[in-house]
Parts: sequence; structure tokens; C-alpha cells
Amino acid sequence: MINYFLKNKTGIKLWQKAKKIIPGGNSILSKRPERYGKDIWPIYFQKSKGIYIWDLDGKKFIDMAQMGIGSSILGYNNKEVNKAVNIAINKGINTTLNCKEEVFLAQKLLKLNNFAGSVKFARSGGEAMSVAVRIARAFSKKKTIAFSGYHGWFDWYLASNLKNKTNLNEHLLEGLTTNGVPIELKNTILPFKYDDEKDFEKVINNNKKIGIIVVESARYNYPKKKFVKKINQLVKKNKLVLICDEITTGFRISNTGAYKKIGFKPDIVVYGKGLGNGFAISAILGKKRIMNCAQDTFISSSNWSERVGFVAALKTLEIIEREKIWKKINKLGRMIAINWKKIFLKYNLKIEVCNFYPLISMKLQYGSLNNYIITLFTQEMLKRGYLAATSVYLSSKHNNNIIKNYLKNCDIVFSYISKILKEKKIKKNLLTQVRTDAFQRLN
Amino acid sequence: MINYFLKNKTGIKLWQKAKKIIPGGNSILSKRPERYGKDIWPIYFQKSKGIYIWDLDGKKFIDMAQMGIGSSILGYNNKEVNKAVNIAINKGINTTLNCKEEVFLAQKLLKLNNFAGSVKFARSGGEAMSVAVRIARAFSKKKTIAFSGYHGWFDWYLASNLKNKTNLNEHLLEGLTTNGVPIELKNTILPFKYDDEKDFEKVINNNKKIGIIVVESARYNYPKKKFVKKINQLVKKNKLVLICDEITTGFRISNTGAYKKIGFKPDIVVYGKGLGNGFAISAILGKKRIMNCAQDTFISSSNWSERVGFVAALKTLEIIEREKIWKKINKLGRMIAINWKKIFLKYNLKIEVCNFYPLISMKLQYGSLNNYIITLFTQEMLKRGYLAATSVYLSSKHNNNIIKNYLKNCDIVFSYISKILKEKKIKKNLLTQVRTDAFQRLN
Repeated sequence: MINYFLKNKTGIKLWQKAKKIIPGGNSILSKRPERYGKDIWPIYFQKSKGIYIWDLDGKKFIDMAQMGIGSSILGYNNKEVNKAVNIAINKGINTTLNCKEEVFLAQKLLKLNNFAGSVKFARSGGEAMSVAVRIARAFSKKKTIAFSGYHGWFDWYLASNLKNKTNLNEHLLEGLTTNGVPIELKNTILPFKYDDEKDFEKVINNNKKIGIIVVESARYNYPKKKFVKKINQLVKKNKLVLICDEITTGFRISNTGAYKKIGFKPDIVVYGKGLGNGFAISAILGKKRIMNCAQDTFISSSNWSERVGFVAALKTLEIIEREKIWKKINKLGRMIAINWKKIFLKYNLKIEVCNFYPLISMKLQYGSLNNYIITLFTQEMLKRGYLAATSVYLSSKHNNNIIKNYLKNCDIVFSYISKILKEKKIKKNLLTQVRTDAFQRLN
Repeated sequence: MINYFLKNKTGIKLWQKAKKIIPGGNSILSKRPERYGKDIWPIYFQKSKGIYIWDLDGKKFIDMAQMGIGSSILGYNNKEVNKAVNIAINKGINTTLNCKEEVFLAQKLLKLNNFAGSVKFARSGGEAMSVAVRIARAFSKKKTIAFSGYHGWFDWYLASNLKNKTNLNEHLLEGLTTNGVPIELKNTILPFKYDDEKDFEKVINNNKKIGIIVVESARYNYPKKKFVKKINQLVKKNKLVLICDEITTGFRISNTGAYKKIGFKPDIVVYGKGLGNGFAISAILGKKRIMNCAQDTFISSSNWSERVGFVAALKTLEIIEREKIWKKINKLGRMIAINWKKIFLKYNLKIEVCNFYPLISMKLQYGSLNNYIITLFTQEMLKRGYLAATSVYLSSKHNNNIIKNYLKNCDIVFSYISKILKEKKIKKNLLTQVRTDAFQRLN
């Protein structure tokens, strides 16, 4: 068994080099091996197809974890999307003139989001959220933001930790320092608890300068109706601007944002991740009178007008609609949820299962042992050829058989975990340093 | 002659649609037709190759203007870069694991910039500048920024107009409102005049909170030695962090940043545009002890880890070095400069020629007539099959013959301009609304 782990030499060697020359080793926290099991996680890919990934040593894995941190909703290396992108590339992607696909994508997105009248584009999710916030602030007389959830790395968001360094604990990561964020922004943003309408109401009522609300339409669980209703109600009453961040949730429970099914009445919606099936593209949509404020400020970037993202997004949206991908990934996620529950019951494990199916998650209730158990789960699933952690981003390339086999393996691994939990031998059985999601540890 | 302009129906129709659903019509100011001649500029491309662009009606143009706003340094649709990107795409571009090219590109960039010890990546230029500023602020005890030049759309930069709304006139655009930028940032950034060492010294001496200097290594003209020396000197003396923005200048006068030849001693350097030959990628390099501060704050984004940008940049840098592209584009830019001067002398035109050859620019001295003359130049060059304005971004696909023919046409057009200038018939001869670079007019 140990032989397999020794095989991952190439990836670990490259990661050691990377850590020396890239702060943190890469560009995104969620792809750092320390979050899974730093001595055993394959770290790098050489190729991918559908839900399969091959590491640098040629070992093949089934991705039952992050699917490109949610970006590859149609599976890796999707033939149709690639074809559209390749055709575009071979005609040129960034000239002195504009590409027509920018307009077509705007038209398409407006058709899917009929509350909206205008669109802006960017490339990264955090960047798109900054565009949304700039426009909302340009529109609103009141500039302070109240938020819940994760919305990227930019100053406007991290500023919430300037007043109280635990403000972001529940939304982003524990123990986050905000060095480099101007202290002047201290009182410009306030957090409220996700799915807690009383906390939301308290925050709004206690701060008359709040003009902008930023939420994720959903995260691990759907929000309660009361929460959604209260937000819509106070947004209307106080004439606030509601921004729904759909970077994670977009296109996963319908052909558009999750806000529609859930009932949020947004003024601005932001998409990223799944929108380009892995190609970098993000979009900001909103009511026309609000979006027009983009013209009273300066928002412009060379790389936003590059063609690849628009072309990839157009094809991705076409396939999502044609194949009703959201139906499929919900069904598969529900299948995982139901069977995880059965497994946890069967082995008497204290693990809760969330209800946002297309990104299905489990939550362990073992306190300080949580990360040891998760690492062991990842380790044992890796042995069986799976990339696995506590969440699964479903894609259109997952299917019943894949899920059935995955669940069979989950059953075996959780039976084993239950056994050694009783024997108090979890730590002893780890072949790697325990995972961490705490920020300090990743440095 | 008028027939040609009538031919551009498809582009203009699409632009009219675009303006209704995208604030400003597109994602980047520099590709808006109002900046060239809104009724005659082709606006959209359907394909491109080398220095040629075909508009939506199939009309072919030679790009003697922006070359993708400086992004396509190796020409449009470069075969080698495309091949590398296509291979990568067909193996997958955004998986749960990292791509090895991220590390390779970091290694490559560090080899080219030996003052630096670490690298971070982003996708857009403005975004990369925000990363640089966050890291510099996390490192420096003093958080205030002094800057010169254009550095994107983000809050940290636009904040300079909060105190005085003409602060950005010389650096970005006249008449820029900064709606949506938090007023709290008012005193966090101060401008100094480019190439004015006395103004720089005054700004630094008058504000003891300044810890960070942001400059473009060059813009239209090379900076004077005295200016460069003064910056280096005060940066060293006051222990400031110097950020050189090389998004426009990078790889154009050497195989790396312009700072090297010009003599700036940066702590952080930022690349964008040319780095990926049109594919969206940007990079932030710096001294290790500074860059490590990236780990005391949160900087992370899904789309930054997408593979296309890294692969495109690796191939682009390989070609730039192999073919010593910077030598070629400097020679060609110099050829334009010398001959423009001759033409302007010959026709007794008050037009200055700048000295940053790879992005060669002319500056008209006709006051309020400037934009009419430039529009007429663009108009007459369009008739002759050229995209042309007051600047030319040279690329490796331009050559002596192309430039000779371009200059021949410049001669004819400036002869004509000189004639009708004398006759005071400039405005009468315009077939389009006059161009504008003023911000308000573009809305």
C-alpha cells in the first residue's frame, strides 16, 4: 500500500520547488495539498478527461472532490467547449477590435436573467465581485456593505476583519490576518450570519449607513425561507442594493442563478467558475439603472476583452441548457446525500449531510478530531483511486455507476474509520501530516 | 470612397446593440470606436493573422495601431503559441490539481528578473497591480502610495481623485469621476508628475506616511536619468517599496522589464499584456522578503490557476528570447519615428514624436484641433486599409516593407492634412463624429 504513496514523488518534488518561489506554492488556496494531506495528495495533473485526472506519475484518479474547484461543471476537457475555443483561437483572440462573442454572451445572460438589463465582464471571480461592489457603491447613496459568505480576496471584503479579526471566521477562514488592507476601510463592511434573519435584521437596524447587501445565494445548505424573505423585505424597505454572489452556485440548480429558485430578488448577480467550464471568465449582471453607474466611474481592463472566455461561456451555457445539466447533477448529488446518511447511520458516525446537492457536503461533529478523520478518509479513498474530501462538486460527466462505486468505497472506508475511531487509532493510521483549513498553517 | 464606410454596417449595428446591454459597449475603453471615429471604425473582428484583421464584413486591415492594446507582441494568432495552448486545452486546463506550467513560468520569470525571489500570478493587469499593492502594503510600515502613470481601475488607484478630481488627469483620463470608490481612501495615494524629479521629491518630503512608490518604467518617452536616479535614491534612503508597472513596457526593450535598461531598482515588478500574447495572464514578481508578506494576508482566486495563461506565457517568452523580438520592434519603431519626423517637417506640421520606439507615439500641438486632425488621419488611413491612430504598438510580425508602405501612406495623408489645415477645412472633411479620449464623452 505504501508503494502507491511513494509513487507520488514527481508531484511532491515539484511542490517543494513551487513553495520556494510562489508564496503558498500556487494561486489558489483550495488547490494546496495541505488542505487534503500534504504527503499523499497528487498535487499536479498532467492530463484530465471527464472526471478523470492523471498525476505527473501517470496514476489515474476519479475526481469525487472539487472538479477544478467547481469550475468544470461539464467535466474536464469537454470536447464541445474545447472545439469552440480552438476554432476561436485559430482566428485570433485579442485584437485591436472587439470580438462579437462579448455581445452574444451579454445577450444570452440577459435572456437567462430577466430582472437584469446590462452586463459587465471580468476574468476572475473576486475581480467580478469588486466590479459589482464598485457599481453598487456608485449607485447607492449609502456606501457601507453588510455581507454573509465568501467573496474573494479584495480590500472591500477583507476590510471586514479590520474591526474584529474574527469577523471572517465563519465566512472565509479562521485566523485570517488582513495585512495590507487599508485601515481606513475599517467601518465600510459588516458581517451577518448566514441563514440567521435575526442577526441580519439586527445588523441592518444598527447601522443606518448600510446601502449594499452581499450574499451567496446558497452555500452548504439552502437558506431558510424566512431568511430570504427578511432580506428581500429589508432590501425593498430600506432601498438597499442586493448583490447575489453566484460564483459557486450559478447554473447548479437551474439554467441560471440559484437566486431564482431560492427566491432572492437581487439587483446584481455575479457569475464565475462554472460559467466558462474552466476557462477564465466572470460576469456581472444587474438592473439597468444600477449598472449604468459603471459609466460614472472607471472600470476597464485589457484582458477582459480577450475572446476565449466569451466563447467558452457561450458553449458552456448552450450545453447546460440543452442537456439540463442542473437536473442531472442535483440527482447525483442527492444520491450521494442519501447514501452518505445511510452509511453514517450504519456505522454510527456523527456526521451531518448538507442539502445543497450539486455541491454536496458532509460536516463532521468530532471537534478537534475532525481533520484527522477527514485526512484518513482522503488517504483511504486515494488508495482506491479517488480524489475525495468532505465536498463533492458534481459534473455532467459523473453518472450513476461512478457514484455507486464511489459510495461502495465510501462504505468500506467509513466502516474502517468507525472501527479505528472506536480503537482510538485515527492518528496512528495517518500516512501524512493531518490536513488543515486554518489559514496560518498553509503559509 | 463613401461606399467603403457604408460597408461597415454589421459592426456598427452590433455596437449599437452592445451599447444597450453593456455599459460603455465593451470591457475596455481603448477598444471603443468613439476613441477613433465612431461612424467609420470597424469595431469588431471576425478573424486575424499576424498584423492583419478582418472586420465582420470581411474587409481586411493592416494593424498599425494598437495590436490588441499591446497584448499581441508576437502578432495575432501566432502559430506556435496557439499550438502550445491547443495541446494544453486538449489535456485539460482547470482541474482539482495544479498545473505544472505555473511553476515553470515562475522559474522562467525569476531567471529573467534576478532581483526577484518569488512570483504570484493573476489574469488581468489591474488585478495584478492590486496584488502588488496589497503585498507592498502588507510589508511596509507606511501605507500611503505615491504614483505616476496609469495603473488600472481599482480603488487603491482611483482613490487619488478623491482629494482632487484633477489628480488623474495627466495619468489616466481627464474628467474622471470616482463614484463608488470609498471616500475613506482619500489620503491613501498621491500623484507625482512623470519624469519630474523635483515634483517627486516634493511629494515624498511633504508626506512622511508614503511607503510605496508606483511608476510605469516608461510611457511615451523614456524617463530622464535624473528622474530615475532620484527615485532610486529616495526609495533607498527612506526604505520605500518601489513597484514598477511593466504591463505596457515589459519585453519591449529587452527580454524582460524596461526597468533594467532604464535603471530603476524595483522591489516589485508587474507584467501583463504582452506576457501571454493576447491570452489573459499577469504576473507579480518581487524580492522574497517582500513577496512573503503575501502569506500574511489572503490572496487567492480560482481562475488564476487555469492553465491557458501559463502555457501561453511560457511559449511567448521562449519566442521573445529566441528571436530577440525587442530588437526587432525597436528598430521598426525607430524607423517610424525618424520618418514621421521627416514627414512632419516636410509638411510643416506641429507634431512631436516620442522616443519609446516599440510603442511609438506622436503628440499633436494644435490644441482644440488635435482630435479633429487625429480623426482625419484615422479616417484617411482606414480608406487605405490601415488601422491607425497616434500610437503604434509594434509586433514581431511587422516588417520593413509593411512599415515602408505605411509611411508612404502617412506621407500622402499628412500632405493632405497639411493642405486642408491651411484651408481650415479639417472639420468639414470628417465623415464621422470627432474622436474623443475624454472620459465623459465615452459614456
